[in-house]
Amino acid sequence: MTARIRWGMVGGGSDAFIGGVHRIAARIDDRYELVAGALSSTPERAKASGAALGLDPARTYDDFDAMAKREARLRDGIEAVSIVTPNHVHAAAAIPFLRRGIHVICDKPLTSTLADAKKLARAVEKSDALFVLTHNYTGYPMVRQARAMVEAGDLGAIRVVQVEYPQDWLTTAVEGEGLKQAEWRTDPERSGAGGSVGDIGTHAYNLAGFVTGLRAERLAADLTAFVPGRKLDDNGHVMLRYEGGAKGMLWCSQVAPGSENGLRLRVYGERGGLDWAQEDPNYLWFTPHGEPKRLITRNGAGFTETLGARIPPGHPEGYLEGFANIYAQAADLIVAARGGAKPDNGLLPGIEAGLDGMAFVDACVRSSKRDAAWVAL
Amino acid sequence: MTARIRWGMVGGGSDAFIGGVHRIAARIDDRYELVAGALSSTPERAKASGAALGLDPARTYDDFDAMAKREARLRDGIEAVSIVTPNHVHAAAAIPFLRRGIHVICDKPLTSTLADAKKLARAVEKSDALFVLTHNYTGYPMVRQARAMVEAGDLGAIRVVQVEYPQDWLTTAVEGEGLKQAEWRTDPERSGAGGSVGDIGTHAYNLAGFVTGLRAERLAADLTAFVPGRKLDDNGHVMLRYEGGAKGMLWCSQVAPGSENGLRLRVYGERGGLDWAQEDPNYLWFTPHGEPKRLITRNGAGFTETLGARIPPGHPEGYLEGFANIYAQAADLIVAARGGAKPDNGLLPGIEAGLDGMAFVDACVRSSKRDAAWVAL
Amino acid sequence: MTARIRWGMVGGGSDAFIGGVHRIAARIDDRYELVAGALSSTPERAKASGAALGLDPARTYDDFDAMAKREARLRDGIEAVSIVTPNHVHAAAAIPFLRRGIHVICDKPLTSTLADAKKLARAVEKSDALFVLTHNYTGYPMVRQARAMVEAGDLGAIRVVQVEYPQDWLTTAVEGEGLKQAEWRTDPERSGAGGSVGDIGTHAYNLAGFVTGLRAERLAADLTAFVPGRKLDDNGHVMLRYEGGAKGMLWCSQVAPGSENGLRLRVYGERGGLDWAQEDPNYLWFTPHGEPKRLITRNGAGFTETLGARIPPGHPEGYLEGFANIYAQAADLIVAARGGAKPDNGLLPGIEAGLDGMAFVDACVRSSKRDAAWVAL
Amino acid sequence: MTARIRWGMVGGGSDAFIGGVHRIAARIDDRYELVAGALSSTPERAKASGAALGLDPARTYDDFDAMAKREARLRDGIEAVSIVTPNHVHAAAAIPFLRRGIHVICDKPLTSTLADAKKLARAVEKSDALFVLTHNYTGYPMVRQARAMVEAGDLGAIRVVQVEYPQDWLTTAVEGEGLKQAEWRTDPERSGAGGSVGDIGTHAYNLAGFVTGLRAERLAADLTAFVPGRKLDDNGHVMLRYEGGAKGMLWCSQVAPGSENGLRLRVYGERGGLDWAQEDPNYLWFTPHGEPKRLITRNGAGFTETLGARIPPGHPEGYLEGFANIYAQAADLIVAARGGAKPDNGLLPGIEAGLDGMAFVDACVRSSKRDAAWVAL
Repeated sequence: MTARIRWGMVGGGSDAFIGGVHRIAARIDDRYELVAGALSSTPERAKASGAALGLDPARTYDDFDAMAKREARLRDGIEAVSIVTPNHVHAAAAIPFLRRGIHVICDKPLTSTLADAKKLARAVEKSDALFVLTHNYTGYPMVRQARAMVEAGDLGAIRVVQVEYPQDWLTTAVEGEGLKQAEWRTDPERSGAGGSVGDIGTHAYNLAGFVTGLRAERLAADLTAFVPGRKLDDNGHVMLRYEGGAKGMLWCSQVAPGSENGLRLRVYGERGGLDWAQEDPNYLWFTPHGEPKRLITRNGAGFTETLGARIPPGHPEGYLEGFANIYAQAADLIVAARGGAKPDNGLLPGIEAGLDGMAFVDACVRSSKRDAAWVAL
Repeated sequence: MTARIRWGMVGGGSDAFIGGVHRIAARIDDRYELVAGALSSTPERAKASGAALGLDPARTYDDFDAMAKREARLRDGIEAVSIVTPNHVHAAAAIPFLRRGIHVICDKPLTSTLADAKKLARAVEKSDALFVLTHNYTGYPMVRQARAMVEAGDLGAIRVVQVEYPQDWLTTAVEGEGLKQAEWRTDPERSGAGGSVGDIGTHAYNLAGFVTGLRAERLAADLTAFVPGRKLDDNGHVMLRYEGGAKGMLWCSQVAPGSENGLRLRVYGERGGLDWAQEDPNYLWFTPHGEPKRLITRNGAGFTETLGARIPPGHPEGYLEGFANIYAQAADLIVAARGGAKPDNGLLPGIEAGLDGMAFVDACVRSSKRDAAWVAL
Repeated sequence: MTARIRWGMVGGGSDAFIGGVHRIAARIDDRYELVAGALSSTPERAKASGAALGLDPARTYDDFDAMAKREARLRDGIEAVSIVTPNHVHAAAAIPFLRRGIHVICDKPLTSTLADAKKLARAVEKSDALFVLTHNYTGYPMVRQARAMVEAGDLGAIRVVQVEYPQDWLTTAVEGEGLKQAEWRTDPERSGAGGSVGDIGTHAYNLAGFVTGLRAERLAADLTAFVPGRKLDDNGHVMLRYEGGAKGMLWCSQVAPGSENGLRLRVYGERGGLDWAQEDPNYLWFTPHGEPKRLITRNGAGFTETLGARIPPGHPEGYLEGFANIYAQAADLIVAARGGAKPDNGLLPGIEAGLDGMAFVDACVRSSKRDAAWVAL
Repeated sequence: MTARIRWGMVGGGSDAFIGGVHRIAARIDDRYELVAGALSSTPERAKASGAALGLDPARTYDDFDAMAKREARLRDGIEAVSIVTPNHVHAAAAIPFLRRGIHVICDKPLTSTLADAKKLARAVEKSDALFVLTHNYTGYPMVRQARAMVEAGDLGAIRVVQVEYPQDWLTTAVEGEGLKQAEWRTDPERSGAGGSVGDIGTHAYNLAGFVTGLRAERLAADLTAFVPGRKLDDNGHVMLRYEGGAKGMLWCSQVAPGSENGLRLRVYGERGGLDWAQEDPNYLWFTPHGEPKRLITRNGAGFTETLGARIPPGHPEGYLEGFANIYAQAADLIVAARGGAKPDNGLLPGIEAGLDGMAFVDACVRSSKRDAAWVAL
């Protein structure tokens, strides 16, 4: 194994959601080692969060500028940093690292204003460091598969792109009921000019471009704030025109009851069509025109990508998390046992489950040998 | 954060599949620190695998007995060990640790013979240590939800249990074509008396028992080896009778073309029915008798468990892996950049994707303000 | 058009369900003309039912023997008769017609006792007339397609047959609450020795045999009456052994909450697998081993049968019934208008809907010509 | 039974598709009797088609004007007429009947020009006769259910309407390869100004209005002809604004490979959402905001309409057609037997199937009584 990458994080203190997701994602393949962080702009919270994550106090900062400066000078300073602050801080936080040649992995969307985005772009251009934006949906193996099939010409020239991302969590005015996630997302100060269109419309837009390889040239958009008093759009209808003549429709909504994260992309070309939905990410539907629809599954027949090969076909992405749940519950028991007596397994399968399984196999074999006679377990 | 659990592994060298899965699972919530291992019984491979995983050479063993002995004496010796050897080694490997009070997490099935299983059971009984068998399907949040609903009486007394686990990868005699996974699974020496019934039938059986809380009392089984020359069953048909009068059917198969890992459980009681399928693990169907069928989703409405709360509803289990793919590819680029020039982002979204997204939002807002006029991006 | 077949019916009076289904089925392709009937054994009901169906009173009988005798002598007597009486009358009713060379279309199951069935079989053998049993599920186009594919060898030699037919309408003791359909189905006098196994298990069994072309040689069955006080089984678990070595499992249940008419057949052979479900009858899943799963649709790509070609692919079977609903509601209005004033269209689309559609097309064309400008409708 | 409605047809000669569909629809509930027709404007074809349908030659016309005139004078002249000519003839054909008080059932779209449509509208207004436009999708029971739920306020005030109707049969230039259906649909002379938008977009538009009860006020449309040389649009993207502030998106396409008749409607209101797809018409998804999604099925729990009650839940619309297939094949055999020998049943289930079913039940009961012992059939 190559040595792990020395890695830092800006934002992502203990009360943040997306920072934890970034850390899990980084741990899954064990390529990164978190060694420094400016996890919060509040000094005490920065300190406490760093301690909770096991960081060296000397490398726990409350100021990303100071962090960039010092880490760049350290012999074993960080090679890469993840920026998981609120959107309006992204540019300011990323630039000092870029300037010092430290690679940046930045949560999306890029920034909250176009001006900030351009500033950041200039910093990326001048820097030798890598800049990665975590448009995470592009990391799904079947999305890569879709892109590869379009690129290989399996669909012929693209004509029609239908992409949508409905949710329902802002159907009522939850921003007025203390839901933090809703508060900043509906606040133009913190989210910029786009509401649903910025939060999830950008994902849909990015996904369509990623898979088709096409650039949108013009659009016509009808944004609406349906919930009374809301300042930013909670529903967006957009018509798109792509280079080369393809046309698209994009729908994003946060007021569509019955929708959780319904990101779905359909692409149609002269010779075939593709259909992928984020909530069932292991499946990709492909129809070569005039032939039966085919279901391509991750690592299954017809799958040609190499990404996501951690587990075999039919074990959905998520198999690992089910496994992790077992480990996490075992950890709870083990920690509890540190102090004292032998813990009870609770819902965790233990020796009885194992014996029972052995007895099951034994009974099956005995029964089958006796022509399927009934046998006791 | 509580300090991480000091953790070892027996088996799981660099060429093994399931050891890697255990390590990923342990990393996801970052509760374990791998500090010792007997990763292979071949000394050189044990050494190389330990190095690859960053283990201290002094704690890299090629003998699980020696490992148990020494780790038990160390001040900071391991608190827990995972056993991921071939099945016939499970008992021998687990017992020395159990004897020394080291917690054991053991891959399923328990052992390859009932005799070994009983021996292991005695060791568990005598030990103060925890013994966890990784029947991983019981770790899926919706499986826990199903169990909780049965327990809460939402289905009334259980009457009928239908469980199945079809696969298709042994449809042809691949064990004769060099496929290792097929070789040992069809070999009575290494797998014991059960073929498909041991490998996947046990999962189905365990899942049914876990969710219903019922104990099977009798069974009648018809096991078949369909592929010519195969020594162990590749298809099993089983009728079950549970305590209290419930009846069940279990089907396992490795010769069912079109099936990947089709584990599915349906449970019917006096007052309702449940349906869950492993390949779509975020969904649980519940029908209270006489009412419309309801779709319960992980972390969505109607979900009452706390497990698996890492990510919100609608982001399938697997979202994290998509995210991890982005991090893994970034790691490749970062490592490549260690030597030299600024790397190209390749398929990873970068600053252009970010700018493009900002331009998209900006264009949407501009267009919408002008009554959905066409605007250029 | 060839002249329509002169057709009679025994049973199927105005209060019966299945008689009406037979009549609709016969009318859909307009090949039969109902000209005689012994629609009930109660003279007044026979008369009234005949009148309601527009039968000549002279050919409205209350005795199937008399009907067979007289119709056989008439110059334009019936050529065919449908038997839609309760099961225990099937044999007695069919035999007089068979004897006189009148073709018989008989509702399933054949009879209520094996003795009766054999008697009827002898009559069929001696007669020159056709005897058709309406195992209606074999009439679905995709079932024919499945059979043709098995016959053509697309699956290779069949190994495993999984068939099931769960329902939920007998989950509680509705036979004691005045539900007639439940009363006779749970009464051994009227239904014979089988409950769910006779009522729906036979359908599942027949379907499996029809599609695979295999004959079952042996079976082991576990029948249960779960509802207290019920005399016939409401759940059946059956293991099957087919000629040539294929094995099967059959499950039928009327106590499976959430199941309406869940007839489903899966067939696996050496080279591929098939999956069909009655509740979604236009779809047939086919997996050639080692290739992606394919979705074959009625009249769509890959469909090679000729049956069911009344409507194009994608218009589900049922399109015709939606259409018929429009006609039926129009008939209500037309009949109501016979007496008097111009009726209101109610929910039926009328001229406004037509104008509105024209205006929609016109507006679309106008808007599109003006580069997608907003236009009023 | 009320006497059947005396009914005529204009258009729908033997080579037409939709005329046959209208006749089947009318026969299903047996409320109409076809007694007159101007089935073709070509005299010989009119005559031959009339004969094939068993019409009295004296009431077989080749001119709809003459038909209207004469039928209006007959004592038992037609009460209703169906117009199933090409679109551009609808108005001219319907008006003479409307003038004489004969009810008109007219295929959609109303006409090919807005001018014609207005002319026809005036005739409807002046007439006492009913005018029904067969927007057949509104006849699906679950569409009625959806409308009733919106009307009952189950969704609260409607905000967002997403409707689409993709097909794929015009993906290539089949109009140049002799496909008649494609020829006239892509010909502005015969179809008017709209291509896909007129042919199927109108269905989507009508369905959205029917279910929501909302009137569209403005739209912005982007119509495209993707296939080179095609004169009419084969894809339409439309944004809609409804009275009261609801917004909608409509997509229609005939160049979307993998789509057969993908009409789908989703409606979202303040309190809930609905989802219905024409290809699976027996299902309606309803999500009350904040509760689990529910599946409402035709005639199942939660279904409150009375339409479509011909068959029970779980027997899909289409059950009747499967049944009809059995009857149609029996008719073939019966007709063939008119001349001669006893026919072979072919694929139709006969006495053997019946005996086999009886033997199956008998074997199940025998086996079950002997504790699921194996028994021969």
